[in-house]
Amino acid sequence: MLESTYRLIEDHMLLCMNDSSHDRDHVYRVLYTALDIACTENDVDFDVLISACLLHDIGRREQFENPDLDHAEVGADKAFRFLSENGFAEDFAAKVRDCIRSHRYRSDAPPESIEAKILFDADKIDVSGAIGIARTLMYSGQTARPLYLLLPDGTVSDGKNDETPSFFREYKYKLENVYSRFYTDRGLEIAKQRQQAAAEFYNNIFHEADSVYRAGRDKLGRFVT
Amino acid sequence: MLESTYRLIEDHMLLCMNDSSHDRDHVYRVLYTALDIACTENDVDFDVLISACLLHDIGRREQFENPDLDHAEVGADKAFRFLSENGFAEDFAAKVRDCIRSHRYRSDAPPESIEAKILFDADKIDVSGAIGIARTLMYSGQTARPLYLLLPDGTVSDGKNDETPSFFREYKYKLENVYSRFYTDRGLEIAKQRQQAAAEFYNNIFHEADSVYRAGRDKLGRFVT
Repeated sequence: MLESTYRLIEDHMLLCMNDSSHDRDHVYRVLYTALDIACTENDVDFDVLISACLLHDIGRREQFENPDLDHAEVGADKAFRFLSENGFAEDFAAKVRDCIRSHRYRSDAPPESIEAKILFDADKIDVSGAIGIARTLMYSGQTARPLYLLLPDGTVSDGKNDETPSFFREYKYKLENVYSRFYTDRGLEIAKQRQQAAAEFYNNIFHEADSVYRAGRDKLGRFVT
Repeated sequence: MLESTYRLIEDHMLLCMNDSSHDRDHVYRVLYTALDIACTENDVDFDVLISACLLHDIGRREQFENPDLDHAEVGADKAFRFLSENGFAEDFAAKVRDCIRSHRYRSDAPPESIEAKILFDADKIDVSGAIGIARTLMYSGQTARPLYLLLPDGTVSDGKNDETPSFFREYKYKLENVYSRFYTDRGLEIAKQRQQAAAEFYNNIFHEADSVYRAGRDKLGRFVT
């Protein structure tokens, strides 16, 4: 890919993510991780892969403004339109669109091409490990979600049976289970290297919070009567 | 303390922190940790301590709306007024005010009474360990601060020499150094138990981010020319 082409696509991505530096950083991490994976796979079209990585989240704002929308669907169509309008071949634009459409973890449409599989894995790797923990906590702060919920007896819930959003719930529902479904060996390898960091953080924070409540609530009962 | 008195003060705290569940959770953790510490100290006035813990952050909103204000100063005065208006003795209200005024980490006024020292330590413990990491990341998300900055050569800055806010900078400037200045032995002991969890998280996330950029940027140079 020519550098001028890269800059054209990168500029469009930056325009679509105007205010959120952590979303932009995510895009570069996904791109770099995808290139790492791609170098271990055969017959990868790097121009399709690089374009799909740069543009994979350009539908985020629309989903944020209207949660009924799926950012993968919106982003896929936006990317196809942008590439078509900027002189890329229809076949190329369609390949990029298909990668973006199937990159979502909860999507029903599984990735088919090798570029789509690499994007899917690279995007999931950014939910793994300490970075996955950090992104989820930053999102919790942004959306005013709590760290944890309390059980009826006043102790800290581990998140497993929570019915409303919390960081602990998101860990139990999503982050903890992200290590099972990978399409590439290198993707799985990178995610596995990070698994322990995430698990240790969750175990540490749960222990810290749980022990504070257990020790403190008993003592409070002695001084408030 | 009578339960009705506790509820009166707790309700005022909840009113002052109307929208932010993680700020409320912080208050309870500080209260419970303070009681844990207090049980290892002599001559603690538990009524003063409990009141000061519940009310210590009621000036947060004012500081958030006007960063020139110091939430410890504002909160101390608000607490004094609230307690005076609700029939507490002036001497009691003044003791609570003094605890709140000196609880801030960056404050020039060091805590003097045992209750003030315990509040100071309990508040600092909530900046330590995995909980300190989580609170800082949630605040980063809330205020749209990035996880890290990039150095001029495109690699990830460890935060040490950053001049604008980032999570890595906050770790290097504040979280990493929170384990030195404690007033109580039990406070220091709890913080030390958590120190490794925070350090490991930072080391893991720095390694994850740094290795992604190092591996990916080199490869990008091979495919974008």
